[in-house]
Amino acid sequence: MIDLIEKGIETALKPYIGTVKDAMAYSINSNGKRTRPKMLLTLLDDLNVDVNMGVNAAVALEMIHTYSLVHDDLPAMDNDDFRRHKPTNHKVYGENMAILAGDGLLTASMNEVLNSKLKPEVILSLVEILSRNAGAQGMILGQEIDIQNNFNNFEDLTMSYQLKTGCLFASAFEMAVVIADRSDLQSTMRDLAYRIGIAFQYQDDILEIENGFELMGKSGESDSLKDKKTIVSFLGIEEANKLTISMFNDFSKELQAYPKLKQLLIELLNRKF
Amino acid sequence: MIDLIEKGIETALKPYIGTVKDAMAYSINSNGKRTRPKMLLTLLDDLNVDVNMGVNAAVALEMIHTYSLVHDDLPAMDNDDFRRHKPTNHKVYGENMAILAGDGLLTASMNEVLNSKLKPEVILSLVEILSRNAGAQGMILGQEIDIQNNFNNFEDLTMSYQLKTGCLFASAFEMAVVIADRSDLQSTMRDLAYRIGIAFQYQDDILEIENGFELMGKSGESDSLKDKKTIVSFLGIEEANKLTISMFNDFSKELQAYPKLKQLLIELLNRKF
Repeated sequence: MIDLIEKGIETALKPYIGTVKDAMAYSINSNGKRTRPKMLLTLLDDLNVDVNMGVNAAVALEMIHTYSLVHDDLPAMDNDDFRRHKPTNHKVYGENMAILAGDGLLTASMNEVLNSKLKPEVILSLVEILSRNAGAQGMILGQEIDIQNNFNNFEDLTMSYQLKTGCLFASAFEMAVVIADRSDLQSTMRDLAYRIGIAFQYQDDILEIENGFELMGKSGESDSLKDKKTIVSFLGIEEANKLTISMFNDFSKELQAYPKLKQLLIELLNRKF
Repeated sequence: MIDLIEKGIETALKPYIGTVKDAMAYSINSNGKRTRPKMLLTLLDDLNVDVNMGVNAAVALEMIHTYSLVHDDLPAMDNDDFRRHKPTNHKVYGENMAILAGDGLLTASMNEVLNSKLKPEVILSLVEILSRNAGAQGMILGQEIDIQNNFNNFEDLTMSYQLKTGCLFASAFEMAVVIADRSDLQSTMRDLAYRIGIAFQYQDDILEIENGFELMGKSGESDSLKDKKTIVSFLGIEEANKLTISMFNDFSKELQAYPKLKQLLIELLNRKF
């Protein structure tokens, strides 16, 4: 499965040239875990659909995830110098090229979905899912709330996690069920994906405290880590852990019918950084 | 026609909330001439198609044009404080919100195309046209070449103009012919749009010299205007004028069958700033 994803990414970048292409390739090939593409293809597999049918959608989703990281790392945003132990895009290519590389990945993602060998109606649905979840009512709104970072309560923090991370997880699940011609599952799986996204962000918060920032591949100097409000600041480490584990236990139950996706989630939960 | 475009833009922004939405609305409503949407709808009209069929595509195109200006004005790019006599997006909302507003407009453009009341195959073709022309093999590549600005010859300058401006003009023409079910015209009209884009950029260069930067609504301090190579630096003002006028004369002949589009181009040519 991972080979399909890597090959798909390589193919998707072929039409491009120049420094922006190099910058796009640099970030999409920077030790990413391919969590979202794996989610999509694994759910397809659980739904007994040939995973090849979802590769373009999976690559498009990884492009959107990558563009969001490239822009998020910019000096005017989180001002991160390192990500996954490598210099961030703008540290290597300059801010201007990083802005363009992000724009290029986002635009390319739409082109990539069109390469799917699927019915036109299905492809349109994929474009709708991506643009809704990634847009200014989804992931981008989450970024805005995160930047303002004036969470008055735990509910606001949780909403920002749903938008920032849940929306792209929802893209993975929604696209898989639409490709599998199981749109009847779309709203249930979207809701589940939102909650999984939230739990992942909770876990991130906890891991940052437990491991320190070093192990996470982030620079401790990042603006985003100063005075950052997290689940731990609202609930304390013990309650935070308890809630997150109980959420993952719920997902395990809800994913009974999807054993491979369940297994993938368990592996992701067991990450140490 | 302009009312349809303005109403379409208003409707398209409705799903969004927050500061990013305000920032998106600020730039798309900043005295733009709506050149690209007008081109699309006018060509549709010449092709005897109800212009309402193209409004979503026209709005999507204006969103892409606007996002490119918002990102282009950023300090890391051209570092412009003013555009069309108004403070640029990041001067009003901050760099972080301007980055997100650009991202939001680009993503929203894809969603907007999907709202077209057209056959799925046609909508897919519109998404393809937009993502190809706006992407890292089109407009974004043009931005890259423009930033590097080390044009060794007039041909390189012209290529950057084709990519930066011609590609979005091509989106307007290509989308119009596809909506009109006249894909047989697509490559001819794309080529014509490229050349019109080039001529417009030549004209911009000439107007900047003749009017000074003030009248253009740009700040003379812009990084983009320092040591900028233009058609005038390669050919001199007289030859530059001659070439540009001769190109517009050619377009007039080529647009015989499209009287309204021809009229629109003549009006645009007669702009003084």
